[in-house]
Amino acid sequence: MSLLIRTEQALSTHFEHAAGVGAPSRLVAAMRHAVFSGGARIRPQLCMAVAAACGDNAPTLTDAAAVSLELMHCASLVHDDMPAFDNADFRRGRPSVHKAFSEPLALLAGDGLIVMAYRVMLLAGAQHAERLVALMDNLTQGVGLPDGIVAGQAWECETSADLGQYQRAKTGALFVSATRAGALSCGHAPEPWTPLGAYLGEAYQVADDIRDVIADAASLGKPVGQDVLHARPSSAQTLGLEGAIAHFDHLIDQASASIPACSYRDMLCQLVQHEAERLVPKALCEGYFNAHPMGATVHVSAPH
Amino acid sequence: MSLLIRTEQALSTHFEHAAGVGAPSRLVAAMRHAVFSGGARIRPQLCMAVAAACGDNAPTLTDAAAVSLELMHCASLVHDDMPAFDNADFRRGRPSVHKAFSEPLALLAGDGLIVMAYRVMLLAGAQHAERLVALMDNLTQGVGLPDGIVAGQAWECETSADLGQYQRAKTGALFVSATRAGALSCGHAPEPWTPLGAYLGEAYQVADDIRDVIADAASLGKPVGQDVLHARPSSAQTLGLEGAIAHFDHLIDQASASIPACSYRDMLCQLVQHEAERLVPKALCEGYFNAHPMGATVHVSAPH
Repeated sequence: MSLLIRTEQALSTHFEHAAGVGAPSRLVAAMRHAVFSGGARIRPQLCMAVAAACGDNAPTLTDAAAVSLELMHCASLVHDDMPAFDNADFRRGRPSVHKAFSEPLALLAGDGLIVMAYRVMLLAGAQHAERLVALMDNLTQGVGLPDGIVAGQAWECETSADLGQYQRAKTGALFVSATRAGALSCGHAPEPWTPLGAYLGEAYQVADDIRDVIADAASLGKPVGQDVLHARPSSAQTLGLEGAIAHFDHLIDQASASIPACSYRDMLCQLVQHEAERLVPKALCEGYFNAHPMGATVHVSAPH
Repeated sequence: MSLLIRTEQALSTHFEHAAGVGAPSRLVAAMRHAVFSGGARIRPQLCMAVAAACGDNAPTLTDAAAVSLELMHCASLVHDDMPAFDNADFRRGRPSVHKAFSEPLALLAGDGLIVMAYRVMLLAGAQHAERLVALMDNLTQGVGLPDGIVAGQAWECETSADLGQYQRAKTGALFVSATRAGALSCGHAPEPWTPLGAYLGEAYQVADDIRDVIADAASLGKPVGQDVLHARPSSAQTLGLEGAIAHFDHLIDQASASIPACSYRDMLCQLVQHEAERLVPKALCEGYFNAHPMGATVHVSAPH
């Protein structure tokens, strides 16, 4: 079974179990809309891949940990899309939650997903109290203060922010939680897997900055040019487009090199390479540079 | 030391510890604004009072559990005040978080407080893994799906809602979590304490409905007449004002009667009576009926 199929099955099972019986139906529908939307599921797949490398000796707990990461990610997307932030009408090619259901329900759906992430783990972890506590701590660090994705998003509200700190918190933190969760769910030490999550997370954020410049809204499934529009810190603005792409390639190399020696090393390297091509397709970069020969040598100052 | 002073000290200590070092300063300031605002702190005091009745044998864990309840409560207030819901400019006589800091920071402050509630417990619970898991499960049930306060708030977004189910979820659920948490933090069974939380929580919601009609904005510290304005289910609308007050008194009696026999029973009864008078002051009711003699006999259809 592929990691993507395992992820989708785990999401479906754990979501229904954690939603329980009798909750307001529109809230549940809004939360479902946020979660079952064709996401790439890279965080739960990373968690599962690392767990495989660590023996996968508690697969239900691994599944729950993977699901909890994706629920937190989806919660952040729902709130980020709201008018108070990006005011994005579309996400993954479909109406965002507040457009499909209303702002109040988007607000509550995000809150509900954050809490559901904990509930999913609590429901699955009874037989592994120590691992459960370690996993919840790990998830909490990836999301909360001082360095999790909520803090990362909040750097956009400060008058100045360090680009690296912003990117590490906004995106990197949950990737670090993902690789560490794979180890923790098997009772392994998480430290050897921290660099993989950190490099991939930083690469993911740089890729997001790049695609915000070179992609079109139809292929991205959401509006482009948002970083300039919202005056957000961006690698493509700071390093120039070519510099950002070179930085991305370097981060992917570092991610691959950081993978500890194990029988699953080749599989994990393939996952990283596959993800790199999905994030920043070489053909897309070449097409952009062919169409914008000046854009390749100067810093980008406006979305195209 | 009074329970209120113990609560304030615990909030201050655990908030700083959980916020950590290096988080975005405006986010932390917005979260502080939400938490340190002169709230009545009834949920953490209830938790501590029940813990006292159960021997208070792990006071740091009890404090953390009490703090986590208040952080969740504050998170819900921050999000409820936002323009998507009540659009309330004031809370406890001060600007609400989105007015004082901005909508994006209010959104993130609420999210950050939810996650911080878990972090506070995780930081305090290392020596009591079993109690910690039980407390986190208890908190999660009070907040999330299917019956917690997020679900309760979401009933306002449904086309129809059962008044009792709405009230039990919107307010009662976190009161139930509070009394149960007091027992769980001491390693005691939580069930004997469930009715106290349930009756008090329902009474609290009925009191909120009553005060939305009879109080003035200055004494309430927030706008009145919101239930009619937002077409929310309300005991004062359903039962009439006199009926709602009688229902409140009955719930308070049931709360007192439900307290298990223990050496702290008198203290707990006093806490309940003190809270009842704070919630619905007899003098305020008499003043209202003197000024609105017709309001005493007919169902209220508009705020005064």
